[in-house]
Amino acid sequence: MARAWHLKSRPSGMPTNDNFELKDVELPELADGQLRVRNRWLSVDPYMRGRMNDVKSYVPAFQVGEPMDGGAVGEVVDSKAEGFQAGDLVQHMSGWRDEAVVAARTAQKLPDLGAPPERFLGVLGVTGITAYFGLLDAARAKEGDIVFVSAAAGAVGSVVVQVAKAKGMKVIASAGGAEKCDFVRSLGVDEVIDYKSQPILKGLAAAAPDGIDVYFDNVGGDHLDAALALARNNARFAICGMIEGYNTGQPTSLRFAMRIISARIAIKGFIVFDYFPRMAEFYAEMAPWMANGTVKSRETIVDGLENTADAFLGLFEGANTGKMLVRL
Amino acid sequence: MARAWHLKSRPSGMPTNDNFELKDVELPELADGQLRVRNRWLSVDPYMRGRMNDVKSYVPAFQVGEPMDGGAVGEVVDSKAEGFQAGDLVQHMSGWRDEAVVAARTAQKLPDLGAPPERFLGVLGVTGITAYFGLLDAARAKEGDIVFVSAAAGAVGSVVVQVAKAKGMKVIASAGGAEKCDFVRSLGVDEVIDYKSQPILKGLAAAAPDGIDVYFDNVGGDHLDAALALARNNARFAICGMIEGYNTGQPTSLRFAMRIISARIAIKGFIVFDYFPRMAEFYAEMAPWMANGTVKSRETIVDGLENTADAFLGLFEGANTGKMLVRL
Repeated sequence: MARAWHLKSRPSGMPTNDNFELKDVELPELADGQLRVRNRWLSVDPYMRGRMNDVKSYVPAFQVGEPMDGGAVGEVVDSKAEGFQAGDLVQHMSGWRDEAVVAARTAQKLPDLGAPPERFLGVLGVTGITAYFGLLDAARAKEGDIVFVSAAAGAVGSVVVQVAKAKGMKVIASAGGAEKCDFVRSLGVDEVIDYKSQPILKGLAAAAPDGIDVYFDNVGGDHLDAALALARNNARFAICGMIEGYNTGQPTSLRFAMRIISARIAIKGFIVFDYFPRMAEFYAEMAPWMANGTVKSRETIVDGLENTADAFLGLFEGANTGKMLVRL
Repeated sequence: MARAWHLKSRPSGMPTNDNFELKDVELPELADGQLRVRNRWLSVDPYMRGRMNDVKSYVPAFQVGEPMDGGAVGEVVDSKAEGFQAGDLVQHMSGWRDEAVVAARTAQKLPDLGAPPERFLGVLGVTGITAYFGLLDAARAKEGDIVFVSAAAGAVGSVVVQVAKAKGMKVIASAGGAEKCDFVRSLGVDEVIDYKSQPILKGLAAAAPDGIDVYFDNVGGDHLDAALALARNNARFAICGMIEGYNTGQPTSLRFAMRIISARIAIKGFIVFDYFPRMAEFYAEMAPWMANGTVKSRETIVDGLENTADAFLGLFEGANTGKMLVRL
């Protein structure tokens, strides 16, 4: 018997514990090509909020009454698939549970990069790939650019900051509260704005008197509007997330939308999946950066499967610094 | 003695006749390198509304108490510049007046394309260049794309429609009112939406059941939001104008901003000036299209210098079909 989190009901607005239920599930017999995996680490991510709505999007919606899923790292305990054996550590998408039967073709053995397994849910996983390609491909950021990163104490933001510094950019970052700002400062940013202590527009205008060339958006709303206001000519925005709007359902209100025209801004939304074919390129730069300390990993770890929903809900209250993980 | 329109006061919100004043001006003696030009045609354009505000942008603001300027076509009546002589027709930026002394380096003799002179303020001028490069470069529209064009009965929009059809795209257009919709239909669009008879989102959802690949934005606001809602994966938006917001000063409210991420939308603001170096490329395609009737010109003509401010104000009330021009 395994235990898996189920979507009990769809939230309107901010989700609560009542929307989730941890229930026993029967695991099927292992068929050919399948693995039984005992999860060690679960990923909870802001994008999962979108999956709680009944909306067609780039990932299927969670279904009411059904188990949820998401990124996870686990240990193979039984294998009927060639190339996998008990003891292998794998990354897969059957998270939100303690044990799963997984099609081997949807699981990847963790590459031997000398990093602890949970890193593959963070800096060396989807989080890192999002940061790396969002900055360098979607925003086409390059040496010498002035880069503004929002939610810079978060999982993706904290990697964006470090990649940008490694590539010789000037980095201005926002984070909420003194403690997170201290953390972001420790990553080597040039300027940090505490958006809880002042309006972000005012903070950005002071931190970027010459404007910005690049904006990496994790927040949307007022942050996006401030970036529009301060954009220099031919600025490039990578739109990665808009956590400010995930729960409110409020429209995004932009006072500076017309600067898209006058400053010839290029805005690019992106989804990390589209970059999976370029994983090798990512590992080739990120693995040495991790090894030599250019890029550091920071995690907020919650223990116990039963606390997974709380860990997820914490993402919307700023409970995490760096990547939020659940350790089983 | 010449007569020139002056900015009398800055508007807040919708401009009125009180913001403008037609006054006599003394013309200076002609110096070396200068031309005296008698204007025949004046251009009034929505972007001039932005110049009435005291805001630094890509063109200098009009100054209170000073003459205004803008695109014009006129006849050289006196020349102290090599290569120009009386009788030459030139295009220049000293509009909003009947006669001007112009630096010859800022004037272009009209190329001999067999077109009437006023065409160089429209389809063969800034209007046409805006439509052509906005669609093909900023939005990277290509054969087979489903293209949505807003304000398609306007100066730029009506050219976008025709270029898109000439390039083998499917074109969905919006215009305000039955008469304008009939005009847009006469340009060969596949679907036309009367945004005055129904919400644009509803109209676009019906006209584009498979979504859109490209949006050419002249309007902003609800039109932009509807385009976000209907965008297919990897859709490209060229942001040319946002006339809906020029006078209201209201923020742009977007309910579908998050689709920038899920549909991986690329949004590009652009300014026509940036394409002036590529004018030859534009003429090479547009001149034959004009000659063989692939692209037709439509103008709304107002007679008399004294009616220039009215012609300009009419732009914000939908008074024009095609390019609004003043004939002197």
